[in-house]
Parts: sequence; C-alpha cells; structure tokens
Amino acid sequence: MADTWTTAVTEIKPNSVRVRGYDIADLMGSSNVGQAVYLILRGELPDAATGDLMEAIIVSSIDHGATPPSVLAARTVASTGASLSASVAAGIMSINDHHGGAITNCALQLGELLEAAGDADLESGAGDFLDGMKAAGRRMSGFGHRIHTADPRTARLFELAEAAGACGRHVAAARAVESIFAARGKALPINVDGAIGAILADLGFEPEIMNGLFMIARVPGLVAHVREEQVRMKPMRRISPTDHAYDGPDARSLD
Amino acid sequence: MADTWTTAVTEIKPNSVRVRGYDIADLMGSSNVGQAVYLILRGELPDAATGDLMEAIIVSSIDHGATPPSVLAARTVASTGASLSASVAAGIMSINDHHGGAITNCALQLGELLEAAGDADLESGAGDFLDGMKAAGRRMSGFGHRIHTADPRTARLFELAEAAGACGRHVAAARAVESIFAARGKALPINVDGAIGAILADLGFEPEIMNGLFMIARVPGLVAHVREEQVRMKPMRRISPTDHAYDGPDARSLD
Amino acid sequence: MADTWTTAVTEIKPNSVRVRGYDIADLMGSSNVGQAVYLILRGELPDAATGDLMEAIIVSSIDHGATPPSVLAARTVASTGASLSASVAAGIMSINDHHGGAITNCALQLGELLEAAGDADLESGAGDFLDGMKAAGRRMSGFGHRIHTADPRTARLFELAEAAGACGRHVAAARAVESIFAARGKALPINVDGAIGAILADLGFEPEIMNGLFMIARVPGLVAHVREEQVRMKPMRRISPTDHAYDGPDARSLD
Amino acid sequence: MADTWTTAVTEIKPNSVRVRGYDIADLMGSSNVGQAVYLILRGELPDAATGDLMEAIIVSSIDHGATPPSVLAARTVASTGASLSASVAAGIMSINDHHGGAITNCALQLGELLEAAGDADLESGAGDFLDGMKAAGRRMSGFGHRIHTADPRTARLFELAEAAGACGRHVAAARAVESIFAARGKALPINVDGAIGAILADLGFEPEIMNGLFMIARVPGLVAHVREEQVRMKPMRRISPTDHAYDGPDARSLD
Repeated sequence: MADTWTTAVTEIKPNSVRVRGYDIADLMGSSNVGQAVYLILRGELPDAATGDLMEAIIVSSIDHGATPPSVLAARTVASTGASLSASVAAGIMSINDHHGGAITNCALQLGELLEAAGDADLESGAGDFLDGMKAAGRRMSGFGHRIHTADPRTARLFELAEAAGACGRHVAAARAVESIFAARGKALPINVDGAIGAILADLGFEPEIMNGLFMIARVPGLVAHVREEQVRMKPMRRISPTDHAYDGPDARSLD
Repeated sequence: MADTWTTAVTEIKPNSVRVRGYDIADLMGSSNVGQAVYLILRGELPDAATGDLMEAIIVSSIDHGATPPSVLAARTVASTGASLSASVAAGIMSINDHHGGAITNCALQLGELLEAAGDADLESGAGDFLDGMKAAGRRMSGFGHRIHTADPRTARLFELAEAAGACGRHVAAARAVESIFAARGKALPINVDGAIGAILADLGFEPEIMNGLFMIARVPGLVAHVREEQVRMKPMRRISPTDHAYDGPDARSLD
Repeated sequence: MADTWTTAVTEIKPNSVRVRGYDIADLMGSSNVGQAVYLILRGELPDAATGDLMEAIIVSSIDHGATPPSVLAARTVASTGASLSASVAAGIMSINDHHGGAITNCALQLGELLEAAGDADLESGAGDFLDGMKAAGRRMSGFGHRIHTADPRTARLFELAEAAGACGRHVAAARAVESIFAARGKALPINVDGAIGAILADLGFEPEIMNGLFMIARVPGLVAHVREEQVRMKPMRRISPTDHAYDGPDARSLD
Repeated sequence: MADTWTTAVTEIKPNSVRVRGYDIADLMGSSNVGQAVYLILRGELPDAATGDLMEAIIVSSIDHGATPPSVLAARTVASTGASLSASVAAGIMSINDHHGGAITNCALQLGELLEAAGDADLESGAGDFLDGMKAAGRRMSGFGHRIHTADPRTARLFELAEAAGACGRHVAAARAVESIFAARGKALPINVDGAIGAILADLGFEPEIMNGLFMIARVPGLVAHVREEQVRMKPMRRISPTDHAYDGPDARSLD
C-alpha cells in the first residue's frame, strides 16, 4: 500500500488554501509575485524590498527572443500540432546545465571561492581561485555572453540589489572575479546569469533551486513564443535557429 | 533551406534586450511581474492597477497542495531520479482541458452566453443559456469545486478586480449564471478558475492564452513540490494521490 | 480516497508477468516484437504472418534522418545537457497531427470514403470523395511527400502486406485515390504514412492508436540521434534544420 | 549562422532512406526489429541469432502492469486531457536512474568488477568487489526485486542468451555475484534489469545507451496504458499507485 506522506508546501482544507501557513486570499493583493515565489520556495515571506528585487530578477529573465534552445524546442514541438502545455513543457525541459544552469553553477563556484579565500582579501582570493580553476581545466560560469559584451540587465540588477541591501559576499566575489579577468586582459564581464546567481546566493537561496527560479521567470516568454508559433506560422516549417528577425513594436520608452 | 522568419516578442541586439519594444533594463524595477506578463502576452504595457490585478491572479494560482494531477505527475517523475526541469515539465504537461482548462472554457462559454443574450437582461440570458447547455448535454465550466464550497480566492479576486475597475460583462455574466444556479437549488458557486476566466476575458485576453497564464502561475508551486520530493522523499516511493497531510508552518497571519 | 481501479493490460503477481493473459517468459523467444506490440495494443496474439508485417511496419518508420521535427526537438533539448530520457521524450511530444498524424488521418479518411462509397465501384467512390473533400476545403492525408516522389518504403510495404494477405478495402481505397489523383494530373502517390494507415486499418486497428504505433517505431531512431548529439556535438550549438549532411557508412547491400 | 553539421544515423535522399548505409526497403521484411534496433544504435547489422536475442530482450520489458512510475506518470498526465504523445512522453521522462537505470548501473558495476578481478577467479573477485561496495556504502544494482523473488524473465533471458552464444564475462560475473549473495544468506537473485545489463554488456553495448533500449522496449506498454486510460477511465480521477487489479483475459498458454 502507498504510505501516507506529508508535504510542507500548501495546506488544503475545505474553503482554505494556506501557502507555508499564510492564507492565500490574504497574500493576494498584499504580497507581490516576487514575495510569493520567495515564500513558496523558501518557506518564509520576505520584506517588500526583497520582494521587489525578486520581481526584478524574474522580469530580467522573462525572455531572450528566439535565440535560446528552450524557445527553439518549444516552437519545434508546437509546429507539429502539439498543445500549448506540451510545447511549453518542451521549453522547460531545455533548461539544464548549459541553459540557465550558469545561475546555479556560478553560485556554487562563488561559494567555493569564498570558502577557499576564508578571511583573505577577495581580490587575491579570486586570483588564486581562477588559477586553480585553470589548472583543473574548469571554466568559470556566469561570465561572458555569446551576444552581449555589456549586458544592460546586469548593471540594473546590481543597482536594484544594492538598493535593497541585498549585496553580500557572493556579489563581492563575483566583482572580484570580473576585475581579475579584466586585469588579465580578458573581457569576461559578469553576465545576467552570474549576477542572478550571486544575488540569489546572497539572499540565501540554495544553488539547486536557482535553476527553478529561471524556469519560473522564463515561462511567460515560452507561452508568448508558442502562441505566436500557433497563430502566425505554418505547421512543420523548418525553424532556423539563426535566420530570424524582429518585427514587433519599434523601440519605445516607458514614459 | 530554412526560411528567414520573424518574431514580434523580443528584439535581441548586442547589449540590448527589448520586450515588445521596451528595454528590459527599464522594465526591471519599474514594471512588476504582472505588468511584464501582460506585456509579453498582449504586446502592450498595462496600467499599474491592471498589473496589480495580474499579480493577484498569479498569486491566487501559485499552488494547490498535493491534490492536483500536475503535482502528482511532477513528483512521480522526480521520484525516478529525473532532473528538476524534466519533473517540472511533466507538471506543465498536465495542464490541459481537465486541469486549468476551466479558465479557458469558462471564458468561452461566458462569451457564448453574452453573444446569445445580446441586449437582453443578463439574468434571463443566463437562464436561457443554461437551458440550452442542459439540452445539449453540455456542462458549464468554472462553477463548483470538488473541495471548496466557498472558495476564498474567488471573493478576493472579484474584490480586487472591482477595485481595479476591471469587472465587465463577463464577470456580470458569471454572476448571473451563479445566481440562476442558486435559484434552481444548485450549489455551484463560481470557482477560482471561473473567476479568473471571467476577469481575464473582461481584460481582453483571448481564451486560448488563458491556460498559459495558469501555467505561468503554477510553475513556482511545481518547483517547490519537486524540490521537496528530491530532498525529503525516498526514490521510487508509491505516491498516494489522497493519503497525504500537511506538516508545514502553522496557520499564521500577515501581520 | 483513491478508488481501486482495474487494468486489462498486464497482470503482475509475484514471479509472474502476464501480458493480456500470456506469460511473458513464454512470449520471449516465441513471439516477435511485431506480435507482442499487436498483442499489447489489441489484446490478441496475431499469426506469424501478421507479426512479420508488423515488424516490417516498425522497421519502415524507425528513422528519417535529421529532417523531422521530432529529431530536431530531441537534439535541441539534448544540447542543453538534458538526460537521454528527457530528450527522447521531447521527440515523442513532437509526434502529433502534423508529424506522424497522417497515419491516423489517412485511415480515418479512407474509412469515410468507404462508408460513402458503400457498394459502389471504388474508383467512382474515390472520385466523388475527393470532389467532396475539395469542396469542403479539406486535404487528403497520406498522399505526396516533401522529399520522396516514389517512396521505396511504400512499394515494399504493400508487397509485404499482400504476401501476408492483409490488404483489404482500405488499401484498395488508397490505391483508388492515388489513381484518381494521377488521372487528374496530380503526382500525389501514397506515401509511407498513408500506406501504414491503410494497412493498419485493414488489420483492424482503431485510428486513434495508429499514431502510437508510429511512436513505438520511431523511438530507436530518437535514441540514436540523442546519443549522437551527446557524444559528437558541442553543447548549445545552433542546430540548423536544413544544413546537415550524412557522414555514416557508405551505401551497402544486405546480400 | 548555424553551421552545417553531420549525422551518421540515416541518409535521406529523394526516394532513398538508408539506415547506417542499408536501404530501409531492403531491411523491411529481411531484418527483424531486434536487428534494426541493434543496427541503428550500434552501426552494424547483427546476425540473426543476435537479432532474435534483441527481440526477446525487448519483449521481456514491454510492460510491467500499473506498478511502475512511468505508467503512473503517463496515466496521470493522460487523465488531464493530454494527447497520446504528451502522455507517453511523460512515461519516457520517468525512465531514469531509479527506473530502468539498473540496466546501465549493473553493466557499469559488472565492468568494474571484471576490471578489478583481472585474471583472478570470478567467485573470489565477486566476493572482494561486494566487500568493497559494502565498505564504500554502495549498493549493487540489478539484484533483487520488490515484487519477484524468482523472476521468470531472468531465467528465460539467460537461456536465450546461452542459445545465441551471447553469454560472456559480464553474465559470468553476474552469476558469481548472485552466488556470493546466496552464500552469504542474502536472497538477491539477478533481476531482469541485471540480466539485460549483463547480456547487453557482453554484446558490446556501451552502458549509456542501455537505458535507451529500455525506453524502446517500454513504449508499447505505455501506449497501451495511456489508450486504456483515455477510453476506460474518467478524467481527473485519483490514480492509486497500489489499489489496482487486473481484469484482462484469463491466464492462457501459447498453444
């Protein structure tokens, strides 16, 4: 027989839904999505500043056009006549070590660096760590990008994290790594994944869940792409991963 | 050869990511997740009140404990040693006509009702529509729930939609259906899916995308359940869909 | 509580596994895969000739190189670091109405044609049916191919079906459709999907399960492609759906 | 731009489909599914005896009733209204380290044992290996079963492998492990996964692909279960993983 088992996520009773102890009807309108996501993943409700930072992290990763494999997989599946949910699922299945995984991997590596550095100065700790990585044939995750050399999302994220008082030792370590790379003549700035990994680590997230946060952030983009594929495109078309262009609204500013 | 193709979702250029024309770095910290989701699905940025309503809708559907098939599928896949992304994807694949689908179906049916009612009084229009449904052997979606008789999420959603000035003819039609059911002695109150369907329809969402909004809302819950399965449970356990209990934080209030 | 439920597929008892009543250890070595697949899908064990025909159908659909969306989706997911099972699953999820679906759709349409034709001559029945399809804006499934004009698999399948005494009214109807197309100057020969649909219909398979037979047949090809992607290719490469070539063994004969 | 890339699986040209160099129309009717699966995974066509053994391995794993997580996941997804392909895909996604993975893991461990044993007697080599496993807190894969104490499939597989001349050092090592377990008072006979792992290793398959062979074998069972769920069951039912019974054909023999 299947055993009785327990879950600590949400309590369901007739006319009551409590997420980690809080009545969901109370959360609605009082807590934003950033706070609710933090709550459900961590078990505690964060303050408003942290919630706003979580919102900015989610917005930062909502989509990256038709370039990533998650979008190409989702559109390919959609082009065969698959349902919206199966197509979006194919996109989610593409979020792994090489796509989105830099968030988790960068956080793990920064954690290693911090442990190795101990009380030492972070700059020299970062230099020693990169030397060790090189000697071991390992590559630092979360630095450099195949399209962006100065990712606008990174600067903005650090600015918002700073304002929320969320920058700690992982962010400092990430900046130390970036400056060592620069001193050694390598243009490998922190990318958006690295920035998110550092900030989430400073917020206390375990690295293993970080890839999940990327899935949460990216689903709206996947839904938009799959729906566009269903509505605008012919079935079974050959979807080039590179020969595509943007034909949406012109660049516009918020006000 | 694969043809060059176009997408209107997001424009990617070196050091620039623009979602529906807006610089993503500008959206970060200025627009909340509700606004960003609305923007990427609809193409236009909504006002703050609508963004807040979208946030409340997402929070309302973030999780429903271990009862729904999406969570059971995701945990079953996770119990075999699958990755976080494959497990979450199995959950997403479970969001279909019978799970989450009531949002889309209710919106479609309310649309039918409104078209049939024309300029007539909504109460009599709803009565005629339900008579027609019954005669055709069809069932109204979005009313009644297998667990909740007075879903706290529904009341709260309508309250917030009212405050945002978002309640229109679909919400009115949903209420008319509910009161006809009551007059006929049937306890079939609007459930959370029906409320979301009516509100999203009044916001102008096409019914086909509504199930996608449910996926967006539910991924955080799926990530939390899969991670809990990985951390707390033994592999290959038999997962009862009914014999489970909650052992998380006690009921607590927001302040 | 979850109800006790029943299944008619396989009986499991300690030291006993019986598929549709037959001891699996007896089937092993006595029945081939074609017979076992027929048995598990239909409930009865077919004769050896039918089993051999089923084997030939499975072999005919084992792979179609890197051209179909199922392979492109599976490889795209694999390129992100996904597991073998998640990557193969993405391929399976691509088998739908527009990919593999012609088997089911052709069988359904031939069934419609046969019902409409009644006792009439099949040639004139096919002509009338195609006129009706055209008038209704419908397209015949299972005829013509985007790559092959004279698919070698089709001729071979009909030859083997003939030898197995499996060709009945659906195959005759398919041939009648083909000759009407030819008489009207359209080069739309029966393709491999159409041939399989017609033969499976004559074997008595329900159309809804036919797409499942295509999944069964195609998984070996998907496994081979995913493993090749994992072993030979770099992660996150851009996978062109058209710019690929074959570099395997030279053409060779069975002799 | 996406680079031109190559694949060695199947060559597609107008009116020609060649799998690993062989014309697919020649394979149809001449090679059985076992040979074709071996060919597409390994690159070479095996002799008839090996093909028959491959067929028996596939038949042995075609289904295991409603007990495994792959079937439960597939049925759970199907119960929400998912398509056949999405439901079967959820089953495939459940084939991982803890489900089906014993085939790969057992083959790897037997390989380790053989390397450690070198020229030594296999019995003593197996004893030393199990001591080392125990000391390292590792568990031998492919021995013992939660339902079967004397799996009828195992004996039959070894019998057929013997007849095909396919039993080599991995099978001998598996038997040595089994007899050491017995000598130590542990009832841990080789199970069907262990037997398949040993035989496939002796046939020269790489361990990483073995899980793929299990997927190939199991898809027919998954299709049968999903179709049964769609036809016989009510949507959204709670699917108990344990409270189910068999109601198919009575036990019957092949002649």
